[in-house]
Amino acid sequence: MAMVCVSDFEAYAKKYLPKIAWDYFAAGADDCTTRDENILAYKRIRFRPRMLRDVSVMDIRTKILGSEISFPVGIAPTGFHQLAWPDGEKSTARAARAMGTCYIASTYSTCTLEEISAAAPGGLRWFQLYIHRNRAVSQQLVQRAEALGFQGLVLTADLPYTGKRRDDVRNSFRLPPHMKLKNLEGAFEVCKMSLLDPSVTWNDIYWLRSLTRLPIIIKGILTREDAELAVKHGVQGIIVSNHGGRQLDEGPATIDALVEVVEAVQGRVEVYVDGGIRKGSDVLKALALGAKCVFIGRPALWGLAYKGEEGLQNVLRILQDEFRLSMALAGCASVSEIGPHLVQPSKL
Amino acid sequence: MAMVCVSDFEAYAKKYLPKIAWDYFAAGADDCTTRDENILAYKRIRFRPRMLRDVSVMDIRTKILGSEISFPVGIAPTGFHQLAWPDGEKSTARAARAMGTCYIASTYSTCTLEEISAAAPGGLRWFQLYIHRNRAVSQQLVQRAEALGFQGLVLTADLPYTGKRRDDVRNSFRLPPHMKLKNLEGAFEVCKMSLLDPSVTWNDIYWLRSLTRLPIIIKGILTREDAELAVKHGVQGIIVSNHGGRQLDEGPATIDALVEVVEAVQGRVEVYVDGGIRKGSDVLKALALGAKCVFIGRPALWGLAYKGEEGLQNVLRILQDEFRLSMALAGCASVSEIGPHLVQPSKL
Amino acid sequence: MAMVCVSDFEAYAKKYLPKIAWDYFAAGADDCTTRDENILAYKRIRFRPRMLRDVSVMDIRTKILGSEISFPVGIAPTGFHQLAWPDGEKSTARAARAMGTCYIASTYSTCTLEEISAAAPGGLRWFQLYIHRNRAVSQQLVQRAEALGFQGLVLTADLPYTGKRRDDVRNSFRLPPHMKLKNLEGAFEVCKMSLLDPSVTWNDIYWLRSLTRLPIIIKGILTREDAELAVKHGVQGIIVSNHGGRQLDEGPATIDALVEVVEAVQGRVEVYVDGGIRKGSDVLKALALGAKCVFIGRPALWGLAYKGEEGLQNVLRILQDEFRLSMALAGCASVSEIGPHLVQPSKL
Amino acid sequence: MAMVCVSDFEAYAKKYLPKIAWDYFAAGADDCTTRDENILAYKRIRFRPRMLRDVSVMDIRTKILGSEISFPVGIAPTGFHQLAWPDGEKSTARAARAMGTCYIASTYSTCTLEEISAAAPGGLRWFQLYIHRNRAVSQQLVQRAEALGFQGLVLTADLPYTGKRRDDVRNSFRLPPHMKLKNLEGAFEVCKMSLLDPSVTWNDIYWLRSLTRLPIIIKGILTREDAELAVKHGVQGIIVSNHGGRQLDEGPATIDALVEVVEAVQGRVEVYVDGGIRKGSDVLKALALGAKCVFIGRPALWGLAYKGEEGLQNVLRILQDEFRLSMALAGCASVSEIGPHLVQPSKL
Repeated sequence: MAMVCVSDFEAYAKKYLPKIAWDYFAAGADDCTTRDENILAYKRIRFRPRMLRDVSVMDIRTKILGSEISFPVGIAPTGFHQLAWPDGEKSTARAARAMGTCYIASTYSTCTLEEISAAAPGGLRWFQLYIHRNRAVSQQLVQRAEALGFQGLVLTADLPYTGKRRDDVRNSFRLPPHMKLKNLEGAFEVCKMSLLDPSVTWNDIYWLRSLTRLPIIIKGILTREDAELAVKHGVQGIIVSNHGGRQLDEGPATIDALVEVVEAVQGRVEVYVDGGIRKGSDVLKALALGAKCVFIGRPALWGLAYKGEEGLQNVLRILQDEFRLSMALAGCASVSEIGPHLVQPSKL
Repeated sequence: MAMVCVSDFEAYAKKYLPKIAWDYFAAGADDCTTRDENILAYKRIRFRPRMLRDVSVMDIRTKILGSEISFPVGIAPTGFHQLAWPDGEKSTARAARAMGTCYIASTYSTCTLEEISAAAPGGLRWFQLYIHRNRAVSQQLVQRAEALGFQGLVLTADLPYTGKRRDDVRNSFRLPPHMKLKNLEGAFEVCKMSLLDPSVTWNDIYWLRSLTRLPIIIKGILTREDAELAVKHGVQGIIVSNHGGRQLDEGPATIDALVEVVEAVQGRVEVYVDGGIRKGSDVLKALALGAKCVFIGRPALWGLAYKGEEGLQNVLRILQDEFRLSMALAGCASVSEIGPHLVQPSKL
Repeated sequence: MAMVCVSDFEAYAKKYLPKIAWDYFAAGADDCTTRDENILAYKRIRFRPRMLRDVSVMDIRTKILGSEISFPVGIAPTGFHQLAWPDGEKSTARAARAMGTCYIASTYSTCTLEEISAAAPGGLRWFQLYIHRNRAVSQQLVQRAEALGFQGLVLTADLPYTGKRRDDVRNSFRLPPHMKLKNLEGAFEVCKMSLLDPSVTWNDIYWLRSLTRLPIIIKGILTREDAELAVKHGVQGIIVSNHGGRQLDEGPATIDALVEVVEAVQGRVEVYVDGGIRKGSDVLKALALGAKCVFIGRPALWGLAYKGEEGLQNVLRILQDEFRLSMALAGCASVSEIGPHLVQPSKL
Repeated sequence: MAMVCVSDFEAYAKKYLPKIAWDYFAAGADDCTTRDENILAYKRIRFRPRMLRDVSVMDIRTKILGSEISFPVGIAPTGFHQLAWPDGEKSTARAARAMGTCYIASTYSTCTLEEISAAAPGGLRWFQLYIHRNRAVSQQLVQRAEALGFQGLVLTADLPYTGKRRDDVRNSFRLPPHMKLKNLEGAFEVCKMSLLDPSVTWNDIYWLRSLTRLPIIIKGILTREDAELAVKHGVQGIIVSNHGGRQLDEGPATIDALVEVVEAVQGRVEVYVDGGIRKGSDVLKALALGAKCVFIGRPALWGLAYKGEEGLQNVLRILQDEFRLSMALAGCASVSEIGPHLVQPSKL
């Protein structure tokens, strides 16, 4: 079977992953409305393509927080990569570096931060953090990440408790015994997420700031009010995200929320978006609506499930090629030419 | 099969109830458009969830007409509970009390009010009333309910005649011979609903008021005009309801009508809503749009059909857990923090 | 099988009519979009039902052009009733009279006007007319109808040529040899519709007026501009119609066009509507939006196909009962209480 | 099987063409959203038909750039007609001439321009041009076309690179060895589309103008901005087109873009449209919204696939008959009576 588009990798993963792993990655909260809306909302946006512009030399590079990436698609933080491929996050790190983009490693990785760093020295990586009841655990993680050369700290804001994912409940999902949340070993018993602290507030940003010189990116913002608070509390970036539709169901699609957040932020910090990216043209839409870069979650896992590092590179290369082509067909030769004039507002 | 969400109980009931009973509970008027719209209208509402609020201590209690309930979900009045479970309304009363919430017992119960009261002494209960051509029947019911400690009187306003439910006609639905409308025995022949009085008007509220000191809640209001009339005639509460889509088909979904009624009432009386509640997040939406509490009809019957009192408790507990989680994920630690800022208006 | 609603008769007719007859009656032009939209447009309209009104005594009678009918549903002109039932239009005439309503007999009847009159003396009937190239044919028909006691003349305005109904082309539809367009025998060869005159204009209304004292009702109006012209040319009534979606496909649904026509006419003439009526509540919607009466086409044919006169009475009685019930549930005790306050505008 | 409407030819072609050829003609970019939207957008437009106008004498002729055509439907440029029928573009040319309409021959024809001209001397033809990196190739083609009597030059603006058509990738589509891009033989290796020049800009219009006295029509415009630029750079006509949904997916449907382009152009040049035309009533809608003429792509190929020249004539005749009938049923006797009053704006 030819792997032509990202959906081909999804079909492959659905067919070949163990059901419990597929279900875990695919899961959305409740009725999965938001998970699916993330995708449908992109389809409602129409381009306004411009013709007869010189697109013979294409430049699709961009910068996020000062670091250049080869194209504006990074790897979103997702947990348990060994469920998709034996080498887990090590493969992810290698693929991201090979493709010249940024990988946000999850707290819930099945490899240690040290293993991830050693697997792909010099790669651009950020570290994703949950704040635990035991703040010492979080502090230690932040400091390990900084010491290992991670260049950004991504605080997930939308998981005071875990969303209700029906299939995971039905499957009694838990990690297979041979996999570990290696970054948390010793800190507490594996898979007890209730050790996350639901009392975290905006003031904890100041505490984080006191621990590290890394830029802080907040992930999970969906409203202009929270975007304003994020700027006010000094973050360097915002990832508009609904956790892939896995937390509160029936919130907004991320591409719809992006518009509101970008408008509130007014360029004071960088804004990124994840959720629902399946084609290069989705990336173009997100950038047209103000995102500096997008991050992919499930598509990266499907790539891993297909062929590990190589499979993820395939996925990234498809998105890269599609993004470049979409730009050209819309009349843009470089990322700086992308703007809101390229899209019509959704009619729905 | 794991019972994870309310739909699981629906699937169970559809599979195991006698067809004639399932059809009766499931029935909507005519094309069942309104029955189904009650659910679809919730799906069209999008949350605006807020992040990084302290949701470590959750308080989901509320009060209706001064009585505290453990969470804002009560049992709507539905008839013929013995069709779902042998103990009928006695099981319903026990489950409601066990879960600390309010049960509105129907005139068309298959247990007497006395049996219901005895089954769960001390539970918070309201009594649902139709006004009969023979007013003495209604008067006697009201006075029995008051004497038994029922704490509210719910007058159903939307059934001057019974709606046309095609499946009931096809099935020639009637109660099995061993079940009785026990509260009406002697008053008139069983199942002759035509004894309901279609000449009832707003002035009959004054007559009801003269019979009892109980608060009067009017059920079946769908417009601002009628909400205004209800307040003017001195009711203490309004249940926005379309009788589960069983009366006039193609009226508004209740959650849509709620907005209009709440706006008209301006806080002068409490407003509740029933119809279409299937998830804890639906409860959150209803409260965000101004309902003080919601009532569930068919989901309660599915719970009964599953395991009687225990099954209904399961359903209530699922809604309770989902409601608490939705609140937390939307950034609310107590019911008092819920407000219209939590939702976007429907795009359809 | 119990015949509970109009759709049951449709299912029966589809099962038992010869395919060529079913296809002919069911046919819409081109993609049948307008045929289906006629129905869908009703479903998009929402009621605003009012409660606690005295609906113990229901009066569903109305008057059209001064004649009382038992409820506001008449029989629209459709051709070839013998395709549905051996007695053809004689059965139709009997059923309409038995139910106390108006029957518009088609030029393309398979019984003569004389047979129709003799079958149901005293029934309220209008005659539907196409204007033929040979005006003497039309003149003779008008004068026969008037002499036979028909009380209105319905001029069809939307058929300068016959619409393209794909199934009729595929089936090479023509009347079976034993059926005749009896009102046109001798006038020209049967089934040559091209003898209709496509040069007819508004001035021909004056010519018609010169032939008869009967009120003239124009059928097929869909815009405010044409409604204005109809009033200006002295018609007594307008039937908003798109010929059941059989002429120009992708014009407006009739219930949507009704609003525009009623607004233009401002009560100067009576306005009726046909197309898409399947339930009593559809009748209520049409009246709420300003129609004085509705006419049913295909449902009448399905009734005939079921059991001739008796079957059509069944259909009419179902619509009558449903209309009365819908009125009561919406809070109206008589037709005069129906008004635009009963409906919300469509959201689509 | 009777060939009653254009969809019948589509079904035939899907059944009888080799899969690789069907897939090539059917292909849309990415998810094929725009390809399908081209059709759906027509269905969202509603007519406002007018009655009782004299439509006994119908005149459906029009003129494009001064040349009369028998009805406003021409043949859009599509490649590789030998994939559909052995005689390829020669059959196309003959059918177009027989039907009295315009054929836009593609650069990617499988017959030479000379063969096309010889097949149907005197037919109205335009030549479609891509600008190649080697400008001499383009210059030679333009001058050959002009010498052969082609009367217009259609510059395709939306293909700096070829869109991503997944099925073509999966099928590794390429021309069978016995077919050639005959107009380009010698110029460069067959099927190397990368020889198209992605650096073309509006200034190249001036270069084209310097080569030929033929009117220049630009194809692929979708925005008011580009329409304004086209007028400013001196083109004589604009074809609103999205290349049948084969280039940038999720741009606007052409009938939606037409409105914007017509408004911008204000009659300064002629505007045409292609994409999604399947019925005569679609042609009427396009003209009502300001198109001077429409062009059909895939329907022409389906006609060829059915029976070559004769099959394409069948398709054109069906569209002609349907267009004439739609006009009459909408109340227009000649093309000059068609205008925006005939349609309602889309509700979606």
